[in-house]
Amino acid sequence: MNSGEFRRRGKEMVDFVADYLDGIEGRQVYPDVEPGYLRPLIPTSAPEEPDMFEDILNDVEKIIMPGAASPACTELETVMMDWLGKMLKLPEAFLAGQVGEGGGVIQGSASEATLMALLAARTKVVRRLQAASPGLTQGAIMEKLVAYSSDQAHSSVERAGLIGSVKLKSIPSDGKFAMRASALQEALERDKAEGLIPFFVVATLGTTSCCSFDNLLEVGPICNEENMWLHIDAAYAGSSFICPEFRHLLNGVEFADSFNFNPHKWLLVNFDCSAMWVKKRTDLIGAFKLDPLYLKHSHQDSGLITDYRHWQLPLGRRFRSLKMWFVFRMYGVKGLQAHIRKHVQLAHEFECLVRQDPRFEICAEVTLGLVCFRLKGSNKLNEDLLERINSAKKIHLVPCHLGDKFVLRFAICSRFVELTHVQRSWEHIRQLTTDLLRAEKD
Amino acid sequence: MNSGEFRRRGKEMVDFVADYLDGIEGRQVYPDVEPGYLRPLIPTSAPEEPDMFEDILNDVEKIIMPGAASPACTELETVMMDWLGKMLKLPEAFLAGQVGEGGGVIQGSASEATLMALLAARTKVVRRLQAASPGLTQGAIMEKLVAYSSDQAHSSVERAGLIGSVKLKSIPSDGKFAMRASALQEALERDKAEGLIPFFVVATLGTTSCCSFDNLLEVGPICNEENMWLHIDAAYAGSSFICPEFRHLLNGVEFADSFNFNPHKWLLVNFDCSAMWVKKRTDLIGAFKLDPLYLKHSHQDSGLITDYRHWQLPLGRRFRSLKMWFVFRMYGVKGLQAHIRKHVQLAHEFECLVRQDPRFEICAEVTLGLVCFRLKGSNKLNEDLLERINSAKKIHLVPCHLGDKFVLRFAICSRFVELTHVQRSWEHIRQLTTDLLRAEKD
Repeated sequence: MNSGEFRRRGKEMVDFVADYLDGIEGRQVYPDVEPGYLRPLIPTSAPEEPDMFEDILNDVEKIIMPGAASPACTELETVMMDWLGKMLKLPEAFLAGQVGEGGGVIQGSASEATLMALLAARTKVVRRLQAASPGLTQGAIMEKLVAYSSDQAHSSVERAGLIGSVKLKSIPSDGKFAMRASALQEALERDKAEGLIPFFVVATLGTTSCCSFDNLLEVGPICNEENMWLHIDAAYAGSSFICPEFRHLLNGVEFADSFNFNPHKWLLVNFDCSAMWVKKRTDLIGAFKLDPLYLKHSHQDSGLITDYRHWQLPLGRRFRSLKMWFVFRMYGVKGLQAHIRKHVQLAHEFECLVRQDPRFEICAEVTLGLVCFRLKGSNKLNEDLLERINSAKKIHLVPCHLGDKFVLRFAICSRFVELTHVQRSWEHIRQLTTDLLRAEKD
Repeated sequence: MNSGEFRRRGKEMVDFVADYLDGIEGRQVYPDVEPGYLRPLIPTSAPEEPDMFEDILNDVEKIIMPGAASPACTELETVMMDWLGKMLKLPEAFLAGQVGEGGGVIQGSASEATLMALLAARTKVVRRLQAASPGLTQGAIMEKLVAYSSDQAHSSVERAGLIGSVKLKSIPSDGKFAMRASALQEALERDKAEGLIPFFVVATLGTTSCCSFDNLLEVGPICNEENMWLHIDAAYAGSSFICPEFRHLLNGVEFADSFNFNPHKWLLVNFDCSAMWVKKRTDLIGAFKLDPLYLKHSHQDSGLITDYRHWQLPLGRRFRSLKMWFVFRMYGVKGLQAHIRKHVQLAHEFECLVRQDPRFEICAEVTLGLVCFRLKGSNKLNEDLLERINSAKKIHLVPCHLGDKFVLRFAICSRFVELTHVQRSWEHIRQLTTDLLRAEKD
């Protein structure tokens, strides 16, 4: 949608809202629809080609409005999470479908998804151990619980451990910054020998620092054998899995109990929208279900409906699936794939430019839209370069450490980015580098 | 703002967004402002009378845009939370000001605020006890920790206890559904005698069931004496404290460590916006602070800036303080007070109508916008009446239990509600009641 169409459609939307409020007294306060009304009214998967905006807006009036906020808000979310799961070719077990045991939910952030998974895993292991040894207290078990993630995992994983009050151990990643079977196995053996209880592993697909990928096909089977919950955090990289050529990065997801990525990062859905799937929804619900009278409803025990309040930390919910519905239909799967592909291609263009300048080195494999690079030389030199780049305020880079190296990260992000921006950025960096090296010499 | 003005202003806003995107290449990627730039640019408190919409929009370009998303997003939030704190006449200790130790943060929901408070309190007591007895493990302490709330507290308090993995005990409320000193003291003595460690109390101002108020002036001093964290949950009622005639309901807040209410419930700010204040921000930050390199910045240790990511569960944040800024300025404090007063007055109108019909009884004191009432008679009769009311779909009521009584709740909520709606609702309920009683007789 270009600027002109945005202006037109945006203004139509303002009128839509105003008309709704002007006519609100004519609407029923409670919908006539029955649980499950929505799924049959919309396609079972996202369109390949873009839909017309008129059609989408008409469907809002026809499909959403009769279901008011509830159950439309819940049901559209379930179906959109199925659409998205199908785009990623997630195993059937993660989809809600009509009768599935799994399903998806929109969280606010990957941090919350990781925390929810950890808490569900904690409850599950505590119950299992207490069932086997009724004398065991929760405190006695929790003191021995241990969770694992790679040393490249996001800080939110450590935070989930702090909040959940369980030990979190960091597994040394390999030369490509991936968690491998051997290192995990070593930690498990050591910890079990000390009487600890391994219960939870977070595997990262596309780490924050350098977009490396934990080895799911190695780590997954270990988690299953050891009866540990496997959560996959693909916050950034997950969007790329809608492209067949990147889908192999998700191989091994079949071993996982929960999977999460952020469509708000790279799938053109506005912040916030973090997509989380579980294989057994009862694992999540079981950890938190509380039913006071003021939240009871007549479909409570029918199994027909999803009560997302048991799937998340807050009680209240926004209607975030509308954003997904609009974006998926306005772009179509092909449009979304084109967006991903363009970014990956531009990252490779930048990588080529860096490789052509012998002063620089590429520091990690470029798989998606992130290029990790640095000046050959000291960390101090690279810190100085970063300082010059960010002070010039034409582009903004966020650094990382890889091993003992201070590394610059060039991330392709904007919906509007073109090759010319990448080229100009690189010329700018080269110029600042020349200035820096000249100043260093003097 | 009426419908016509909404259409006009909404369309201007669409153009504002489109113009921004059209001209985005001309903007700097990183702001020139220094931390603390925003506070001096805006008044120290909310306006009494409404501001002009043009002035607000001009201020967005003049004050917000130069500060981009950061630091504007953080700084406006801090100042808006000070504005709101002053509207409520919160003790100075809760405000950030220029040099304060307290301050406010926008959470997504009261559930998250309660959980954050509980987790901060847990960390604080664990550290204190470990400092006194270095041999104590966290697990050994947590097994003995116990939190308290009234039996009228919201289910999210119990959920916070589950997530935080600490015992939560329910204190029997008095005849007016309030937590009192005697019942709390009794539980404390019993638990301490059993070797437990009381560490956290949630007092509710305006309970979900019947809008009752825990006795803060009794409970607060006990919390302070016993070194327990006192969190106040005023999710619904908090908005009313901006009116001098309701401010006394908040007396005793000076004993609290944290206080929360939801402007999205009753202060005309769109969902979600849950306002939380703490007296010592280091208590919150200390519980969760993690600083990976990719989140470091040059003002990290200056004390000049607020890093809200340490104040909340998710890492990412939305620019929710803009909603507050717009609403506070478009209504002015007087406009917001008028909104609250109208709802309270309409609740009393409904109460009067109920009292005039001898078939009904009022079940709890009407203090704000909620009226708890029932047909004199069995719970079954009232369940049947509720069923008839909600099936007719003209109004929608959510019930509660008060003691052993099944009670109907009439809540004034809408921005557009008028006396005529209340009168028509009551006529409708009376008619359904007459039908019901006639059917019962047959």
